[in-house]
Formats: sequence, structure tokens, C-alpha cells
Amino acid sequence: MSDLGGYLGECRERVLPQIQRMIPEGSPYRGVLYDRMMEYALRDAKMLRPAICIATCRALGGRLEEALPSAAVLELYHNAFLVHDDVEDFSEKRRDLPTLHGMYGVPIAVNVGDAMLALALEPLLDNMRTVGMGKALRVLQAVQRMARESAEGQAIELEWVREGSFGLGDEAYVHMVEKKTSYYSFVIPAAIGAILAGAPASFEAELERFALVLGVAFQIQDDILNLTGDYGKEARGDLWEGKHTLILMHMMRSATPRDQARAQEILRKPRPLSTAREGAIAEAVARLEREGAIGAHACAVLREAISSERAPAKTAEDVGFLGALIDTHGSIEYARAEARRRAAVAGEAFAALGDRLRPSTHRDFLGGLVDYVVTRSR
Amino acid sequence: MSDLGGYLGECRERVLPQIQRMIPEGSPYRGVLYDRMMEYALRDAKMLRPAICIATCRALGGRLEEALPSAAVLELYHNAFLVHDDVEDFSEKRRDLPTLHGMYGVPIAVNVGDAMLALALEPLLDNMRTVGMGKALRVLQAVQRMARESAEGQAIELEWVREGSFGLGDEAYVHMVEKKTSYYSFVIPAAIGAILAGAPASFEAELERFALVLGVAFQIQDDILNLTGDYGKEARGDLWEGKHTLILMHMMRSATPRDQARAQEILRKPRPLSTAREGAIAEAVARLEREGAIGAHACAVLREAISSERAPAKTAEDVGFLGALIDTHGSIEYARAEARRRAAVAGEAFAALGDRLRPSTHRDFLGGLVDYVVTRSR
Repeated sequence: MSDLGGYLGECRERVLPQIQRMIPEGSPYRGVLYDRMMEYALRDAKMLRPAICIATCRALGGRLEEALPSAAVLELYHNAFLVHDDVEDFSEKRRDLPTLHGMYGVPIAVNVGDAMLALALEPLLDNMRTVGMGKALRVLQAVQRMARESAEGQAIELEWVREGSFGLGDEAYVHMVEKKTSYYSFVIPAAIGAILAGAPASFEAELERFALVLGVAFQIQDDILNLTGDYGKEARGDLWEGKHTLILMHMMRSATPRDQARAQEILRKPRPLSTAREGAIAEAVARLEREGAIGAHACAVLREAISSERAPAKTAEDVGFLGALIDTHGSIEYARAEARRRAAVAGEAFAALGDRLRPSTHRDFLGGLVDYVVTRSR
Repeated sequence: MSDLGGYLGECRERVLPQIQRMIPEGSPYRGVLYDRMMEYALRDAKMLRPAICIATCRALGGRLEEALPSAAVLELYHNAFLVHDDVEDFSEKRRDLPTLHGMYGVPIAVNVGDAMLALALEPLLDNMRTVGMGKALRVLQAVQRMARESAEGQAIELEWVREGSFGLGDEAYVHMVEKKTSYYSFVIPAAIGAILAGAPASFEAELERFALVLGVAFQIQDDILNLTGDYGKEARGDLWEGKHTLILMHMMRSATPRDQARAQEILRKPRPLSTAREGAIAEAVARLEREGAIGAHACAVLREAISSERAPAKTAEDVGFLGALIDTHGSIEYARAEARRRAAVAGEAFAALGDRLRPSTHRDFLGGLVDYVVTRSR
């Protein structure tokens, strides 16, 4: 685990300058665009995806220099997804600081994400010169698939939130997570590493068996940390947001019909947006009452009018109720066991790769991921 | 003009099925993703950008079949930009119907735009097989530049809105518009047509001289239509939004210091978001007053509390004031003259291309754009 941290740190040291080099040199748009693009990358990012790409490439005999530009692109894509996801999920925190749209507003955040997607293409085209047409084209195809899978996975999840349907089985969750998380975080980084090392397409398929299930374990751990951990994100953000996680689904099918009904009702409410406006008005009402300007009846009518407007949003009590149900039914323990079970499957798939991944720190890093995805604390 | 309409119509007939073919066949994600992706394209889109690509290719002796996939990609990119721009501009209408985020919410709209950008890559990679590595790579580089220029242009404009600085000169506007509009609507579609026809890179530069200024004339006309026309968009949306247009800048520097100060104050206010909540609360206050539950003083205090909360947003009266100033100072006429002047420059650049664009309906279409961009009514 500490070795794994060291490997990640070394990769980060090489990848970060590579990302910075993607910014058009001497650009007059640093202030309004490119510095904002670097915001998340500079926030102590783990750079897991570039590390997987680099480790796979090198464990297959490829060179670091060949993998570096594509590895940096993977991190830039990841950050673009994060910026847009934070908008899509109304998230408030990312890596312990405000989200990009929290800092600059939704319009600028959406555009910064688009700019990242635009810049990400350039090193992939430069690959044509540096690693040859054949490999460069396969890398581009892999990136195209990654972007499509992620958008499809995100579409599935957003539709669940939109419909407020919480009776889904674990398989539906796993399918969504494979698309939303596994492809861009594990499958494609490994595939690109393999392509750059000159591995045959058949080997990509074997790597995918390892990486796909590893990504699911990783996401389940992510969901657990969201509820239990100090995580750099808003505490219990997934509950506020009504996200479909293995934890929530387990709780829903374990709860009594009565609890289930109340939980369903809570989950269908939107999360409160800005409370500033409601707060100011509520304060004005309180002031009027204190000053004796309005009577108790008027106050009640007014409060009712305001609260009937506000009723649809979740309250802290609502979220506390969901959290208590999750504790009661051991849903976090269930999710932990599921994550471990899947990590074990990934471990077997890794073992099946044998010494085609050459014994090395790179191979050790990839093998270490099996443990890491379910033991990490952030 | 009617010939131009005919040419556009023919292109549309060929391009639309091509876009539809980009959707993964038999995809189970049509309902949650791909049908939504087609929403704007099916709304009687002009398909100007694919037509410019096709016309340039064919006027240079290229074949329709070679241009078609890239032309469709241009329209898909355009639609992705529109979806994200509508989010960024808080727009309510697009082609006479609600915007995508108006229909499905911001989260889904942002993701649908991302999915379009992902799908757009595929035909560009297929180009490798159909038009050869060299051309395909140049097309990809052109698309990469297009995406970067657009994001930079958008970043400049969003920063102006964010800062509320309205004392900019026409040059600043022109620079922003070249990046935001000209590249993706004119320069790159023409460049891609030329690349696919096998034209030398030097010819691209000459085409750019024509297309860059044409795009500026097009955008000025767009700004004029926003204020004067039945346009498929929200009437006067640019004023509500406080967009920096040639019209607004002319008005600001022509107005008396006093009017200027009031206009500045209005322009710095945000546009009202949802008025539903404020309306409900205002109604509750009115009801309390009618029922005699609260006295006149309480009512005034309450209204003040509510209106001080609401004060920052523009009102219809505010926007009317801006409109009147624009009329008084002839700012629309000024913009019209500027658009015509630039169209004339485009006309000269077009003439300089001579018969390297072969005399044909394709060449006529491109030449016809000079008039079209400043006479179109939507």
C-alpha cells in the first residue's frame, strides 16, 4: 500500500508537467480559461489513471516516454469529467475545496470542461508522429470508446435520479458502474498502456476482464467512503443527491415496507439548492414577529407559504433517517463484502495474466490495485 | 437567396441520415441519451456548417461521399455547442422550442452534450480508412483547433458577463466573435472541405481570410435578430443576459453619462432565474394583507425584505430601458452597417479566390453566403 503510494507519487511528478505542457504556450487565455482547467489537477490528485496506463505499458516492455502524453490525456479527461459531473450532481466539494462551478459558476465550469476535452485531443494526434500511425489510431479509438461508455453510464444514472426509481437490482448498478467508472478509470487506461507497448488486441480483452471488475470494486468503495469517510467531498453527498448505490439498494430491499415508503419519499425529493434566499426571508419573518409587527396567525400563514414552497427539498433530518436505516440493515457491511468479493475476482483475473506482465515494480503496482481499491480511505 | 435555401435543403437531406447513423446501432440507450442528442438536429436546423464543408469540397473537385461524414460531425459539434451554450447562457428557447436543459434539466443536458462530442470522434477516425491517413489527420487537427478556439471565445465572453465590464471597444468584440463563432461556423467547415478535396495548406489560409470575416458579419446579424426578429430564441435574450454585442457597445459609448450609468447598473444585474418561488411568496404577502392579517407596516417591511433579495435581477422595465437607448442612438443601424462592411470585405476575399473554386452550384452557394449572412431573417 505504501509502495503503491510511492508509485503513484512518481507518476504524478512526471504527469503533472506533461498536463501543464498541453496549455498553449504564452496563451493570453490563462486567466480566463487555462488556469481554471488546472484547478482540480493541482489539488493533490492521485493520478491513478495515468499510473495504470504507465504501469501497464512498462510491465509489457514499453517505454515511459511513449506512454506519458497519453497518460496525461487520461488525467485531463478525468478532470473534465469531474468538472461536468460536479455540475450534474450539484456537488459542493471536490478534494476538500469548493467545486469549480462553486468557484466560478456553472457557465464557466461547463466551458472549462469543454476546453479540457478539446486540448486532450492534441497529444493524441501528436502520437501519430511519436508512436506511429497504427498505435496512435488505436489509442484514439480507445479514448473515443471511453468517452462514449462514460456518457452512457452517466446517462443511465441521471435517468435513475430523474425518475426516482429505487427498486433496481445489484446487476443494474454493476452495469451502470462498469460504464460510468470502470472504462475510463481502469479498462481504457490499461488498454492504452497495452496498445503503446505493442501488445496484441487479444491481450487487451484479457486486461479488460481484470480492469472491469476492479473498477466496480473501486466504485463500491467510493460509495462507502462517501457515507463513512473524510473524503474531500461533501459528507453523505450521495444521500443528499439520491444516488443509486449498492448500499442504498440493499437498504431499500431490507427495510420494512413502512420505512421503505418513507425512504422512497425522501429520495424522490430534490436536494436543497441555495438556502441563502430562503434564509433571508425566514429571518425577515422572524424579525417581524419579534418586533410585534405581525401576529402569530400571520406569521404561521407566512411560514406555511414559505415552507410549502420549500417542502420538496430534502432536510438534514431526512438524510439522517436514511443514514440510520443504512446502519440498521448493515448495508455498508454488505457493500464492503461485495467490493471484496469483486476485488478477489479481479485478483484471479490478474493472476491469469501470469508473467506476460513482466515481474517489476510496474507489475507490482497493478497487482497492488486489487487490495488498494477496497482498502483506500480516500 | 432562394437558391441558397435549396442548396441548404439538399445538404440537410444528406446530412441528417448521416448524423442518425452515428448513433450506435441497436443501442439500449436511445431513450435516455441518443434521442435527446437528436433533439436540436431534428428542429428544422439549417445545417449551414455541413453545407459549407460540402460546398467547399465539391467546388474544389472533391466528392460528396468524402465530405459527408465530416460534414455530419460538424453539425453534431455545433449541436453539442448549442446544448452547452444554452446552459451557459441560461437560455430558455432554441429554434422555437424549450432548450434541452429546459426539457430535461441541466445535468442531463450537460451529459448529452458530452455524449455528442464523444460520438463525433468516430467518423473522424473512420476517415483514416475512407480518405486516407494524411487527410484524416489534418481533419482531426482542424476539429481540435475548432474546439479550442470555440472554448477560448466562449471563455472570453463568459468572463465579460462575470466581470460586468461593458466599456470594451469593437475590436475586443470582433476578436471574441472570430474565436467563438467564425472558427466553428465558417473557417473550419471550409478548411475541412478543402482538406478533403486535397487542396494545399496554403489555400486553407486564403479560405480563412474569407471565412473569418464572414463569420463576424454573421454573428453581428445574429445579434441584430436577437433584438429585432422572430428568431426561435427568447426575444431580447441578449439584453436579459447582458451579452456584449456591437449594438450594446455602440449604445454605451453613445449614451449620456447618466444613461450610461443606469444602463451599466442594469447590465450588471443577473437575469431573473425562476420567478415561481418569488411569485408564490409575494402572493402570500398580498393574501395576508387582503385578509387583514398583517398591517401596512409589516407588509412594507416584508416586501422590502423580499425585494431586497430580488433587487439584483433585471426587470422587464430594465430591459425596456436598454432597448429604448439602443433605438435612440441608432445602435442597430450602426451594427447593420458594420455587418455589411464586413460582408463586403468577405466578398472581396471570395473574389480573390477566383476560379480555383470551380464555377458550379457549390461555388455559387459559397459566394451567396456573402449576401445571406447579412440579409437572413433567422
